[in-house]
Amino acid sequence: MITPFPTLRWIIFVALICCCVILPVRADEGMWLFDVPPTTQVKEKYGFELTPEWLQHVQQSSIRFGRRGSASFVSSQGLIMTNHHVGARNLHELSTPENNLLENGFYAKTFDDELPCSGLEILVPVSSEDVTEKVNAGATPEMSAEEAQKVRNAVIATLEKEASDKTKLRYEVTTLYQGGAYRLYGYKIYNDIRLVWAPEQTIAAFGGDPDNYEYPRYCVDCSLFRAYENGKPAKIEHFLKWSTGGVKDGELVFVSGFPGRTERSYTREHLEFQRNIYFPWRLRKLYRREVIYSAFGNRSLENQRRIADDLGGVQNYRKRAIGQLQGLQTPSLWKNIPQTKPAKNSPEEKIQNALQFAQNHYMGYDCIELGEFFNSQTFKIARMLVRLAYETEKPNSERLKEYRDGNLESLKQTLFADTPIYEDVEILKLTDSLTMLNEILNEILYGKEDKFLYFIDRDLSPKEYATELILHSKVRDVTERKRIAEGGIQAVKYSNDPMIQLALRLEPVAKKFREDYENNVEAPMTAAYAELAKKRFEKLGTSVYPDAAFTLRLSYGAVKGYKEDDGTDVVPITTIAGMFDRAEKQKFKEPFDPPKSWKDGKTKLNPNTPFNLVTTNDIIGGNSGSPLINTKGEVAGLVFDGNIYSLSNNFIYTETQSRCVSVHADVIVEALRKIYGADRIADELGK
Amino acid sequence: MITPFPTLRWIIFVALICCCVILPVRADEGMWLFDVPPTTQVKEKYGFELTPEWLQHVQQSSIRFGRRGSASFVSSQGLIMTNHHVGARNLHELSTPENNLLENGFYAKTFDDELPCSGLEILVPVSSEDVTEKVNAGATPEMSAEEAQKVRNAVIATLEKEASDKTKLRYEVTTLYQGGAYRLYGYKIYNDIRLVWAPEQTIAAFGGDPDNYEYPRYCVDCSLFRAYENGKPAKIEHFLKWSTGGVKDGELVFVSGFPGRTERSYTREHLEFQRNIYFPWRLRKLYRREVIYSAFGNRSLENQRRIADDLGGVQNYRKRAIGQLQGLQTPSLWKNIPQTKPAKNSPEEKIQNALQFAQNHYMGYDCIELGEFFNSQTFKIARMLVRLAYETEKPNSERLKEYRDGNLESLKQTLFADTPIYEDVEILKLTDSLTMLNEILNEILYGKEDKFLYFIDRDLSPKEYATELILHSKVRDVTERKRIAEGGIQAVKYSNDPMIQLALRLEPVAKKFREDYENNVEAPMTAAYAELAKKRFEKLGTSVYPDAAFTLRLSYGAVKGYKEDDGTDVVPITTIAGMFDRAEKQKFKEPFDPPKSWKDGKTKLNPNTPFNLVTTNDIIGGNSGSPLINTKGEVAGLVFDGNIYSLSNNFIYTETQSRCVSVHADVIVEALRKIYGADRIADELGK
Repeated sequence: MITPFPTLRWIIFVALICCCVILPVRADEGMWLFDVPPTTQVKEKYGFELTPEWLQHVQQSSIRFGRRGSASFVSSQGLIMTNHHVGARNLHELSTPENNLLENGFYAKTFDDELPCSGLEILVPVSSEDVTEKVNAGATPEMSAEEAQKVRNAVIATLEKEASDKTKLRYEVTTLYQGGAYRLYGYKIYNDIRLVWAPEQTIAAFGGDPDNYEYPRYCVDCSLFRAYENGKPAKIEHFLKWSTGGVKDGELVFVSGFPGRTERSYTREHLEFQRNIYFPWRLRKLYRREVIYSAFGNRSLENQRRIADDLGGVQNYRKRAIGQLQGLQTPSLWKNIPQTKPAKNSPEEKIQNALQFAQNHYMGYDCIELGEFFNSQTFKIARMLVRLAYETEKPNSERLKEYRDGNLESLKQTLFADTPIYEDVEILKLTDSLTMLNEILNEILYGKEDKFLYFIDRDLSPKEYATELILHSKVRDVTERKRIAEGGIQAVKYSNDPMIQLALRLEPVAKKFREDYENNVEAPMTAAYAELAKKRFEKLGTSVYPDAAFTLRLSYGAVKGYKEDDGTDVVPITTIAGMFDRAEKQKFKEPFDPPKSWKDGKTKLNPNTPFNLVTTNDIIGGNSGSPLINTKGEVAGLVFDGNIYSLSNNFIYTETQSRCVSVHADVIVEALRKIYGADRIADELGK
Repeated sequence: MITPFPTLRWIIFVALICCCVILPVRADEGMWLFDVPPTTQVKEKYGFELTPEWLQHVQQSSIRFGRRGSASFVSSQGLIMTNHHVGARNLHELSTPENNLLENGFYAKTFDDELPCSGLEILVPVSSEDVTEKVNAGATPEMSAEEAQKVRNAVIATLEKEASDKTKLRYEVTTLYQGGAYRLYGYKIYNDIRLVWAPEQTIAAFGGDPDNYEYPRYCVDCSLFRAYENGKPAKIEHFLKWSTGGVKDGELVFVSGFPGRTERSYTREHLEFQRNIYFPWRLRKLYRREVIYSAFGNRSLENQRRIADDLGGVQNYRKRAIGQLQGLQTPSLWKNIPQTKPAKNSPEEKIQNALQFAQNHYMGYDCIELGEFFNSQTFKIARMLVRLAYETEKPNSERLKEYRDGNLESLKQTLFADTPIYEDVEILKLTDSLTMLNEILNEILYGKEDKFLYFIDRDLSPKEYATELILHSKVRDVTERKRIAEGGIQAVKYSNDPMIQLALRLEPVAKKFREDYENNVEAPMTAAYAELAKKRFEKLGTSVYPDAAFTLRLSYGAVKGYKEDDGTDVVPITTIAGMFDRAEKQKFKEPFDPPKSWKDGKTKLNPNTPFNLVTTNDIIGGNSGSPLINTKGEVAGLVFDGNIYSLSNNFIYTETQSRCVSVHADVIVEALRKIYGADRIADELGK
């Protein structure tokens, strides 16, 4: 959808509100750079001094877990803590037909039992350098935006290469403040990572989808891995010690991790677009899909298995979208954004104009170019085959972005992946989206349908058409896909595969939608946001934090309950007793049935052990697996979720109800010792 | 929604298609009057002669089961067969805290054990007389439509009274062919009805919502009652004997029952409106509600209990709406409806004009006047209190229809009913519908919201507003409701109940929507359809069947499988073995877990016993509980559902895939004898 280009207006206003109006002191907002930390804020509000040593220690104990999330070192022997859901892919890959590690959990009794995770690498940020001046040195005001960017890109490539040549680290230049600043980050890479311990999925994700984004919670969403070097456990200088005496209500805590992406810079008009058009439309699609998928799943266990991934995805997105829309529909969040009309020719006005166009074209772009009318793997493959044939005939620079040389490799990997595709699921999804096509076209083009529908077969019902397209298309066979890809334009053009024919007929319409949208929405918005960002950075510099960009950030906050809208008080820390209580009230029905190990071991557990907790830290997707750290720099918990109110964090942070949800450090050790007999690990954690 | 006024164009076209184009012989279409039976059609296609004796016998064995559905006499001692789901309300009412009859089923070992069902009456149609001429006698062409109707109504009242005075029967005049004909039906009433036998819900509705409207099926959707007269089992002359040797693939069968309502007379433009506007919009609401309700239910067992009825209703409506929309989106059903533009001033043109208005006003009417924006019991009650106060101050004839004297009693019954209303469910539903309000108003009134929103509080988010309205309203307390109702306008006007205030603020807007809709859509459509019907009846008379009107009808058809859209063959008759097979494949998980009695008794059962079957009979809601009858006039089965393709039966009947689903007669007897030890009943059935 529309690319986000953060500006800072929001932050300023929010800071103003928080300082002057709602709260006696500033809210715990911000995903701060480690080299521009919120020292003053923390000192003022909590009386704690963020020292350079503290910061360096925490920074170098932090880990980026592949491209999936965050993690941290928790022992001198390379022990790594992250979320169970972040490491789930490895558990899946390490499972055998006899032993499903997601179901059964895993514990390596000795170093030798630790299981190597192939393909997994972790990145430890060991250095950062402000290279803004260097990057900008060659770009002159006379250059066009495009030329200037080329010059900068060249410098970036050189900086990364030079730095890498000197050391064994991996270097990446990251753009911050939409080009206001550049940082050269050096990462130490570990790529021999082994699985040490994981609990059963049923306790890692206790409460499943129903409790997702809710609170109170009871999840041991934790897995432990270990970094090896030269076949031996890595010797680690900077790691987080385990906390003593837990963490208490009101206590100051930090989160160090890799938040993925925020959009706190959206203009008022852009937020209105999100509220009025983007999210309602997104939810319309998600609602119908969730119903269709779950009705299909309910018909049989085999159906359930086939649709599980699709359904889980839809449910998660639906919950997030509802939370975000709920945030955007909260008038108190809008009151303090000035209603002034954007000035003539201002970036705000350019954004407004682009959105005016988007209003009437976004749905068509989404349905036709992004393929929402043809929701199926079969269509996606057919579309890719068609474009691959035509695009690769063109000079590289004239191709659609995803078909340029640099991207072709990964595109082909997707295209030729041999993942199972079920005919019945494909027919189900396509039938529903073709039904939606009929509805929408009728809805938005009432009375003048015929003009727009020449690209689809109008003599069949959605179900008949979907069935024909899916059953008669052969592109679900990888060999056939490869044959067509090799045959180029000829193979596509003369194919009698009905889905390829559909994709082909659709091309002129789809490309027109894309061109219009890119030219009238994306390009002007990108330019306008860059302009806005530049102005603001000139004014405010690094006195504020930049939007999240999957680089290491520090957020501060406190353990703190909140009030639900109906006035119910939510206490910040849950206990083991609370988990068993919830299970019992649900009669131990899935997903409220803890694993056998916990039910059998119940009497051994201290029922008062803290389980999960909420804090006011400002986090977002990507922070999953981040350590929750106390002022001593120790592990107080493990971030794994936000509550429903935190879902609008991508637009705006509010402290009133938005909370970060963590596994409490104590429950991890309690479980390791008493349920999993993992004393060697608990000892290693120093507990 | 828009009132249906059947015309006959559709039927003619369909008959034409069926005779000439698609099928070699006429399709098994029609819900025929017993005094204008499809004798020729049945003779031509199946070589069977419908004799007056056969018809009279079947007619007088047929039963209307209260206002809920159909039934039949199956023994000379007053034994009544209907669906488990039709009699479910009585099972519920007869349950005690110790014995839930829906869960546990019921069997009366002796006559004395049969349980009286208070308030239940059944109607047996024993006579019918064509009174068209009498009814129309007093109406002259000079009279206005309204005057003429008054005269007719007076005649109808006299006819009903005179007939009732002469005998003990209850007489009702029914309008057929939209006024083309009138019938005086005489019903014998039985009001001492007792429960004899009902199986457990888990076998009556095996497969639950997932299998609803699907096939193959395995349901014993059957209950047996008995009519008593003077404290003794009623002596019944006309009853259906049980069939011998079951019913076979291809066999001719009849359904005698009370189909509720069909809309086979809609004009092309009206069907387009249903396809383009009505159903897509209905489904939008149903999809979001199903997701919101089921997510709430999944959070705890108590939530599940509280939301169960709402969720079950939404799921059933959703499935029906999808089936109906699917029918309307099937181009082959449209091809043979002429595309000619309605002639100037023709009824078709008037309908088209009314729909043109409806297009732009239906959503607003539905959301504001019909209350979809304020989905909650609390709002419904508050609205009723407000209207009750203001409307009853007016002369009777000027009031809104539902507040006229004749309707006040039943309105007050609803208003003062003390059914449980859960605050959390109310907040959930209202939050979602207020969220929808924000979305829709933004969607349809983008940029000019403010004008339309003065009636709601814009300073709160949907959730905050819903919470405030629900928690601070006191109208959920029946005493408070009565107090306000007694206080009249003053009590309403000066109430500080926030929901009453909202309903009050809403009144002018809502009434404007209603007035506009009634004047510009409903009234002209009613008049235009009456005009159409008159013309057609003059031309065709009773050579065709009238739209369903909850009077006794006969439909004919054959036991016949069909092809799914993906080419799968569906065999017409399932077996007991098939049921156990399905349960096993679903690992006996709800709703695929048959009751203990069946699992324990499995070995006693003949696995080849036919279980459910599909036939081509033309049925619709109201037919539930109808007997499926063979040519000998014997019970071959018990109608309980239609498949998904039959859902468009209200608009059009097609024989290709649309099927009526029945319980096979054999499985009922097999279960009575071998599972329930109900030999006395099996003996009574002569089996």
